Amino acid sequence: MQKRKILNVAMIGYGFMGRAHSNAFRQVNSFFESPYELRLNTICGRDEAKLRKMAGEWGWERSMTDWQTVVDLPEIDAVDICTPNHLHEPIAVAAARAGKMVLCEKPLANSVAAAEHMAKAAQHVPSLVWFNYRRVPAVRFARQLAEEGRLGRVYHYRGLYLQSWGIHPQDPAAWRFHPEQAGSGVMGDLLSHSLDLAVWLNGPIRKLCSQVHTLAEGRKVDDAVTVLAEFMNGSIGTFEASRFATGNQNRNCFEINGSDGAIEFNLERMNHLHFNDLRHEPETQGRREILVTGPGHPYVDRFWPPGHIIGYEHTFIATLYDFLTAVAKGVRFRPDFCDGVDVQRLLEAVSVSSAQRIWMDLDQTVMLQPT
Amino acid sequence: MQKRKILNVAMIGYGFMGRAHSNAFRQVNSFFESPYELRLNTICGRDEAKLRKMAGEWGWERSMTDWQTVVDLPEIDAVDICTPNHLHEPIAVAAARAGKMVLCEKPLANSVAAAEHMAKAAQHVPSLVWFNYRRVPAVRFARQLAEEGRLGRVYHYRGLYLQSWGIHPQDPAAWRFHPEQAGSGVMGDLLSHSLDLAVWLNGPIRKLCSQVHTLAEGRKVDDAVTVLAEFMNGSIGTFEASRFATGNQNRNCFEINGSDGAIEFNLERMNHLHFNDLRHEPETQGRREILVTGPGHPYVDRFWPPGHIIGYEHTFIATLYDFLTAVAKGVRFRPDFCDGVDVQRLLEAVSVSSAQRIWMDLDQTVMLQPT
Amino acid sequence: MQKRKILNVAMIGYGFMGRAHSNAFRQVNSFFESPYELRLNTICGRDEAKLRKMAGEWGWERSMTDWQTVVDLPEIDAVDICTPNHLHEPIAVAAARAGKMVLCEKPLANSVAAAEHMAKAAQHVPSLVWFNYRRVPAVRFARQLAEEGRLGRVYHYRGLYLQSWGIHPQDPAAWRFHPEQAGSGVMGDLLSHSLDLAVWLNGPIRKLCSQVHTLAEGRKVDDAVTVLAEFMNGSIGTFEASRFATGNQNRNCFEINGSDGAIEFNLERMNHLHFNDLRHEPETQGRREILVTGPGHPYVDRFWPPGHIIGYEHTFIATLYDFLTAVAKGVRFRPDFCDGVDVQRLLEAVSVSSAQRIWMDLDQTVMLQPT
Amino acid sequence: MQKRKILNVAMIGYGFMGRAHSNAFRQVNSFFESPYELRLNTICGRDEAKLRKMAGEWGWERSMTDWQTVVDLPEIDAVDICTPNHLHEPIAVAAARAGKMVLCEKPLANSVAAAEHMAKAAQHVPSLVWFNYRRVPAVRFARQLAEEGRLGRVYHYRGLYLQSWGIHPQDPAAWRFHPEQAGSGVMGDLLSHSLDLAVWLNGPIRKLCSQVHTLAEGRKVDDAVTVLAEFMNGSIGTFEASRFATGNQNRNCFEINGSDGAIEFNLERMNHLHFNDLRHEPETQGRREILVTGPGHPYVDRFWPPGHIIGYEHTFIATLYDFLTAVAKGVRFRPDFCDGVDVQRLLEAVSVSSAQRIWMDLDQTVMLQPT
Repeated sequence: MQKRKILNVAMIGYGFMGRAHSNAFRQVNSFFESPYELRLNTICGRDEAKLRKMAGEWGWERSMTDWQTVVDLPEIDAVDICTPNHLHEPIAVAAARAGKMVLCEKPLANSVAAAEHMAKAAQHVPSLVWFNYRRVPAVRFARQLAEEGRLGRVYHYRGLYLQSWGIHPQDPAAWRFHPEQAGSGVMGDLLSHSLDLAVWLNGPIRKLCSQVHTLAEGRKVDDAVTVLAEFMNGSIGTFEASRFATGNQNRNCFEINGSDGAIEFNLERMNHLHFNDLRHEPETQGRREILVTGPGHPYVDRFWPPGHIIGYEHTFIATLYDFLTAVAKGVRFRPDFCDGVDVQRLLEAVSVSSAQRIWMDLDQTVMLQPT
Repeated sequence: MQKRKILNVAMIGYGFMGRAHSNAFRQVNSFFESPYELRLNTICGRDEAKLRKMAGEWGWERSMTDWQTVVDLPEIDAVDICTPNHLHEPIAVAAARAGKMVLCEKPLANSVAAAEHMAKAAQHVPSLVWFNYRRVPAVRFARQLAEEGRLGRVYHYRGLYLQSWGIHPQDPAAWRFHPEQAGSGVMGDLLSHSLDLAVWLNGPIRKLCSQVHTLAEGRKVDDAVTVLAEFMNGSIGTFEASRFATGNQNRNCFEINGSDGAIEFNLERMNHLHFNDLRHEPETQGRREILVTGPGHPYVDRFWPPGHIIGYEHTFIATLYDFLTAVAKGVRFRPDFCDGVDVQRLLEAVSVSSAQRIWMDLDQTVMLQPT
Repeated sequence: MQKRKILNVAMIGYGFMGRAHSNAFRQVNSFFESPYELRLNTICGRDEAKLRKMAGEWGWERSMTDWQTVVDLPEIDAVDICTPNHLHEPIAVAAARAGKMVLCEKPLANSVAAAEHMAKAAQHVPSLVWFNYRRVPAVRFARQLAEEGRLGRVYHYRGLYLQSWGIHPQDPAAWRFHPEQAGSGVMGDLLSHSLDLAVWLNGPIRKLCSQVHTLAEGRKVDDAVTVLAEFMNGSIGTFEASRFATGNQNRNCFEINGSDGAIEFNLERMNHLHFNDLRHEPETQGRREILVTGPGHPYVDRFWPPGHIIGYEHTFIATLYDFLTAVAKGVRFRPDFCDGVDVQRLLEAVSVSSAQRIWMDLDQTVMLQPT
Repeated sequence: MQKRKILNVAMIGYGFMGRAHSNAFRQVNSFFESPYELRLNTICGRDEAKLRKMAGEWGWERSMTDWQTVVDLPEIDAVDICTPNHLHEPIAVAAARAGKMVLCEKPLANSVAAAEHMAKAAQHVPSLVWFNYRRVPAVRFARQLAEEGRLGRVYHYRGLYLQSWGIHPQDPAAWRFHPEQAGSGVMGDLLSHSLDLAVWLNGPIRKLCSQVHTLAEGRKVDDAVTVLAEFMNGSIGTFEASRFATGNQNRNCFEINGSDGAIEFNLERMNHLHFNDLRHEPETQGRREILVTGPGHPYVDRFWPPGHIIGYEHTFIATLYDFLTAVAKGVRFRPDFCDGVDVQRLLEAVSVSSAQRIWMDLDQTVMLQPT
């Protein structure tokens, strides 16, 4: 192994996502041979005690409490943002202007304007938005099947992201329930993932109509949203995201029905992909439960031998690896901030459609085509 | 067993549904002790050779080719209609006016006006619309759990009816593809079932917005439809019906998420109901796969011992038994033609919503409340 | 439809199996065009009231209480036996000697000697033993895949028949718990089915070692049995049958692992077959859930359209149809009494192996090869 | 966080297990607050290039090629062994004699004598055998349910460990196929896991009878083994382990049927446990699919929020955490080398039973009782 260039990382934020990101920075080179040696240089947040604990657990070399200072530190090469949503914009813009690579949690921002501001600021630095589910091996394999034409012409797409913790009373101080901080409820938190996957797997959406609900008494952000959509390729779509879908924990699932094949995925069983190959003799056609742990499946040869399943955190590791590789090669990484803007536009259309009870036609000229 | 009153049945139509109905008439008293002795008096249709074959297979005593003559025969007590949809109205009205009980395949009619005409004509005779899936034991058990309050407050309802045979080229002469005969494609054929179940299980729908599609080149009826809905009880709903949902054969499924329990059902596994009881200790909560073959489940003690599954045709047998019992007791049977009208109104709203790209507010004053 | 020969049937016994058989006699010509017109001539048993009820429900023309008289009635063409097991032998022998076709519930007898006696008596008349699960469409399709070489060389076979009702206190008068009447507990009742399927699907067994248990205090028949086996084709097998396998209702399941394909079946989901085709590209290999309702699947085109599932009773209907067809053609029907003898020998070997704690080598020279 | 005592670890071996162990040493304090600070001091093996690569990937500070030197290094506190099986004994004995804690891959040894030798040598130092599946959260939760009496009296236990890679031609040089190095094939590799879990979950085995097979032409170790067993608690058991169970990748599964509850687990879906609670009302009893990711489930609150699944490697992390905690408290860790000896005795009984075609009665006086 030749000597690798060192990449100094600063992470702003230290919650659940901070742990998942820390793990990725720490582990990526255990599983992959990335082009960089990563140094967990600085972790930044407001609570010094929590920062020190996180630093100790994950190996961050230093903790600081002022993000503005951090993004300007000359030794920092990459800034990773996992703060409440409303801080994404100022941090990302400052980091990008300071010439750092910028990695940011989803949703990219709380408005299209903010997202566009970020994308513009980051146009000369590598950027990443953590739509990590694109790198679930089973999801990546689904995309591969679609790219190979194994689905034929797609007729239907259904994307559901169903959780149930919203029915429990919540800490009113939690930022996820503050519209100013979170921007939205399930729209930014869950629907954004479903829309990103849909566009990535099935192409741009050209029309949508939606209904946004707040089911909990007195809550200020949305708890559930349903969407009808039509894709550019003529297929019909439906989306649901909810924190009130009792009986479901983390069911980020999709089904795609095409003329030559059909696919189903469910994040609660993220090592499996269901595939129905319609080109096969009719008698033995059926929903195949493929255990996507190799051989021949994306990423997994870097993890464990076939049959040994991986967990949630590996989606971050694989995302980071692909990002580092793209950066070293000087090619565009996807999903970057421009992809984040696209999702933001869809979220805004969902919001307007529901408020005005109208169908929205999306201006595809500004929508970036997925690779 | 005391001597039972004889009920002479005439059936108009002899296709797939004719077989399912014949089986029910023939078998109901093998499994249930209904109040009537059924006589399969007359089968009626246009093709004499096919009629004779059907009569021989199922034990119809006589075959005739003119339905008008049949509905006026004095000895006939009940007229069962399984013709193409456009004939439901004239036959049902004539039969009702002749004082016969009337049983009719779904959808009740091809328009709200026709359905209302039928319901009015049948207001003094017992009527039935064959929404047979209400009597799947697992579905009936789902309703029982809902009635017992086991679901608590309902937040979400999703009803899908997914088939895939639409992608194959069809016999252009088949009545199901003629708008004049079928009235519609999946709307009447599949969505009607989903809407009937939804209203029965979760109460009236107060708003909806939909998109209706014809995916096959040159086809004159709809192949797929998607719907957003809101129920009177405040829950949100989505519906999809399609003949292009490849990978699915006959997936008439629903999921209901309530504050105290969640339910999932799929007709392709119609002997199972999935139930998640949220009143239970959290650690052992999970999606229970209940094999609804008894003991303690609706209908099934009349079929086979626990663990021995039943097939599709038993839904017709149980429906018929409940109808005969209600008739003998002089009480209203559900779903009757009034319920059929309700579904027809929903279908019409779906159609208008899609054509005009608007949300429809349903006038609930005319909507009959489910029992 | 040409005029068919009439076949007068007498059925001895009227329990659960009596209902399933009655249904088959009554319905076979509704679904299939069998070569015979069946007349449900006589039902025979000891309890006159129950007989009359059964006769009324299922259309038996006459009821009688003395089986010896019945089997000698000149007009009877076929005698069907669904009595307690110990009566199989005398009735079958008498019926066969009277020249009747003989159909008998499984297990064929309570000893190899009795079974051989029956087979010898029946060697000049058509005979049938009701191993009805051979005619589950999914099981028949599994056999077809095996015959076509789709499994390659078989390595493993596991047959389980798991029920749980044994843990409940039983009516001590029930014949199933009397060794003299039932012969055994789960061995004859459940394991016999598993062994018949195993031999039919994977060929003769050449060695076995077993353990037979009575788990309920004071019960006189076996409640559970486990078996290690080796097949003539070199594959290894295990079997379990139990009435104490809590959590299972009627899980008659098997798994076959071969060099080119693997299969799983479970009677509780009898319309599905799981197939793993190993000749396929490795990346998309997986356990396919095939809904065996056509097109192209055995029997089901006679029942309902694809996607409409069938229930337990159709296995009897399909068995009867195949029997009648074989009789009309003058060819051997399988499983006949000789197949019943084979299973009886295996059951006896299981019994001896457990009692003596030894492996049993089965004399294959007397074992009849499956077709 | 107070200052923790440093624990210097040496690992002998660097294959697949070396990666899984390295990950555990590296990550345990990111997820748990263990009492020790772990230092990945030395990795030892024969191939210097591979060692250096492993050291770089996982953070080992030093690599050495002579294990005897390593186990005697004064600074080393704990020796972890993941070499081919035949080296377990000499390394463990030397390390224990040098006063080090000893952690060893399963199976503990290639004979009872060797295992006993190791256990005796390690009697004054903490020892661990890597039966990591005891710490799958779902398996640990199964044990908890059993301990709480939720299963009642157990009737049946079935343990299967099914893989399929054995059908592919293997590198003849691989140590797993050398009897001298591996000791056995699936017996030590797979059956050992199943037996350890069975004894841990259901108590000691008192009798067994088995059949051991080599299915691949010319292979020198066993490819498949089947076992009948009887537990001390009176329940009946069956076991199968195979590398020829095509269609299965890594199906380490068990089913336990008790009077009050039944359980099913499958490693391929290791985040789920199926539980059937028979104390519940009969109508809603069913196989619950519990997603064992919290709240209230073992270990998982240290990993990710509820609904975010974990992968294979976390079983090693949780095992290591429990070991370190036990060491710090001075209490016995389970499974230790004595547990490893118990499994070895069972494996030897399996081997003898098959060779001599006899049932083996296990001398329970020497069998250590599980906690």
